[in-house]
Amino acid sequence: MLKVVSLMRLGDVENELEENFDNVTFKFYKHPAVLDEADKEDMDILISYHEAVDETFINECPNLKWIAWFATGVNSLPMDVLKEKDIQLTNAKGVHKRQLSEFILAYILDDYKLMKASYENQTKHVYDHKMQPTLVDGERVLFLGTGTIPKHTAKILNVLGMHTIGLNTDGHSVEGFEETYSIEERHHIYHKADIIVNVLPETNETIHLLKSDDFKAMNDHTLFINVGRGTIVETQVLIDALESKEIRKAYVDVFENEPLNEDSPLFETQNLFLTAHITGNGTHNKTEAAHIFATNLKHFLNKDGLIENVVDLNKGY
Amino acid sequence: MLKVVSLMRLGDVENELEENFDNVTFKFYKHPAVLDEADKEDMDILISYHEAVDETFINECPNLKWIAWFATGVNSLPMDVLKEKDIQLTNAKGVHKRQLSEFILAYILDDYKLMKASYENQTKHVYDHKMQPTLVDGERVLFLGTGTIPKHTAKILNVLGMHTIGLNTDGHSVEGFEETYSIEERHHIYHKADIIVNVLPETNETIHLLKSDDFKAMNDHTLFINVGRGTIVETQVLIDALESKEIRKAYVDVFENEPLNEDSPLFETQNLFLTAHITGNGTHNKTEAAHIFATNLKHFLNKDGLIENVVDLNKGY
Repeated sequence: MLKVVSLMRLGDVENELEENFDNVTFKFYKHPAVLDEADKEDMDILISYHEAVDETFINECPNLKWIAWFATGVNSLPMDVLKEKDIQLTNAKGVHKRQLSEFILAYILDDYKLMKASYENQTKHVYDHKMQPTLVDGERVLFLGTGTIPKHTAKILNVLGMHTIGLNTDGHSVEGFEETYSIEERHHIYHKADIIVNVLPETNETIHLLKSDDFKAMNDHTLFINVGRGTIVETQVLIDALESKEIRKAYVDVFENEPLNEDSPLFETQNLFLTAHITGNGTHNKTEAAHIFATNLKHFLNKDGLIENVVDLNKGY
Repeated sequence: MLKVVSLMRLGDVENELEENFDNVTFKFYKHPAVLDEADKEDMDILISYHEAVDETFINECPNLKWIAWFATGVNSLPMDVLKEKDIQLTNAKGVHKRQLSEFILAYILDDYKLMKASYENQTKHVYDHKMQPTLVDGERVLFLGTGTIPKHTAKILNVLGMHTIGLNTDGHSVEGFEETYSIEERHHIYHKADIIVNVLPETNETIHLLKSDDFKAMNDHTLFINVGRGTIVETQVLIDALESKEIRKAYVDVFENEPLNEDSPLFETQNLFLTAHITGNGTHNKTEAAHIFATNLKHFLNKDGLIENVVDLNKGY
């Protein structure tokens, strides 16, 4: 009998899965640390998004055929090992698109509507009726990446009257973006943008993609938002760009090294607002990822292959 | 020659008006305090949104035929006097719709994305990866009012997957709202909403419309937003509703008595976030209001009447 091991609890969805797939054995663990070693021996399918799933772990699972990764970014997994062992990989792409789009908009509005200044005024009992918040209507937003999340975000920003430009590998046009260019051309495109949003996944090509030169080429009024992966830019390069005022402000949810230590200079960097890699969080995520998993499991059992959210092991997304 | 007196400077638009209307005399003042008394004698048209324009002021302008009010709310003007003297009134309705819609969304996202908690964590060097921000997608928003601003806002919220309900005088249906009801029925409708937004103007009917009973009838998880007029609810009634947890939280930009004094209890009210009546501010406002004015002035000179943004003196909006 096929065996699915989950390194996380899935709540109500566990019963749902067990009822719908009575020819499959499911084991749900609260945490990888409590996993029964015997389960590694005979698991066929693994559900997780925990960093404990590394090369050693995978080598200890000789029957593993499919990893259902319940997050979007798969960069912590050893792609070479998966390829070598012919293990398929799916992710939770799409599950996070609404939360991430809402967060991108939350950052933009927090900045443009001077929310922090109003909050500080309130704590000081100051009533400043002369504040001049700016309209986002008419602003130009450049996305690094034109996948599911930027596409969904662009749709929302367009209704707000904002203009959207997308950068992707070869510059192919994508619905919802007024203009698209290749990532290679980016230095000549930055000047078009008031807001630049990185939503790129971590791959060999995107690690430290943004260098000092990139920030120098941006408008000095640029608002930079990073909800992709922290490794897109070295921490010190970002700090320097803000301190030398190459860009005006940054909202950052992902970092080169996570979690941040208490003494990280980022906490005190001027004009940097940070959140703790929470833009993908949400109680709805597990349920939605489980539904994608169920669809794929049905096809897997029918031997007609996985169909949703299959990760290309060569591309890494 | 027709004489237009403006109690505010209009920047570049001044030249534009003077060039386009060479048969009209314009006088632009920085402030009502510096107005030449002689101008009161012969002005035909007044541009302002200053509280100095009261019954006494109007009585000193025997030739006044039209007040072009450069704000949306006209509640500070003596309607009876205008009616009696047959003075027409236009306002700046529509000029503020984008800024107000963006602010309503900024408040909602500030709350749902736990922005204040992230901000406080940053100041304390705390990295809390476990925060669970909620999706606005799927939430139900009830608007008190279905005019220009709520209609524009509803359009944006719908793209975010939010549901919109509108309340207006007689419950007539309005494009963009999934459901509409009359304001009289409101106590039976509140339970449908996660978020309640007041956008009503101040009229005899709306002053102190919301009583303690209203807040008791709302869900206790309700987020209440007021960007209409502060007089919709007595200050103490709002404070009581928050302190007794009839509602969860409030974002308020307008107050029963403005400006707030340093010792206003509102600065310290739990779960109340306030901004200083700034949701209508923006450098673009004057220009847009001036364009509405120019259109009306053309028609006024042709004697075919004002056509844009005419205020019904009986209704007060």
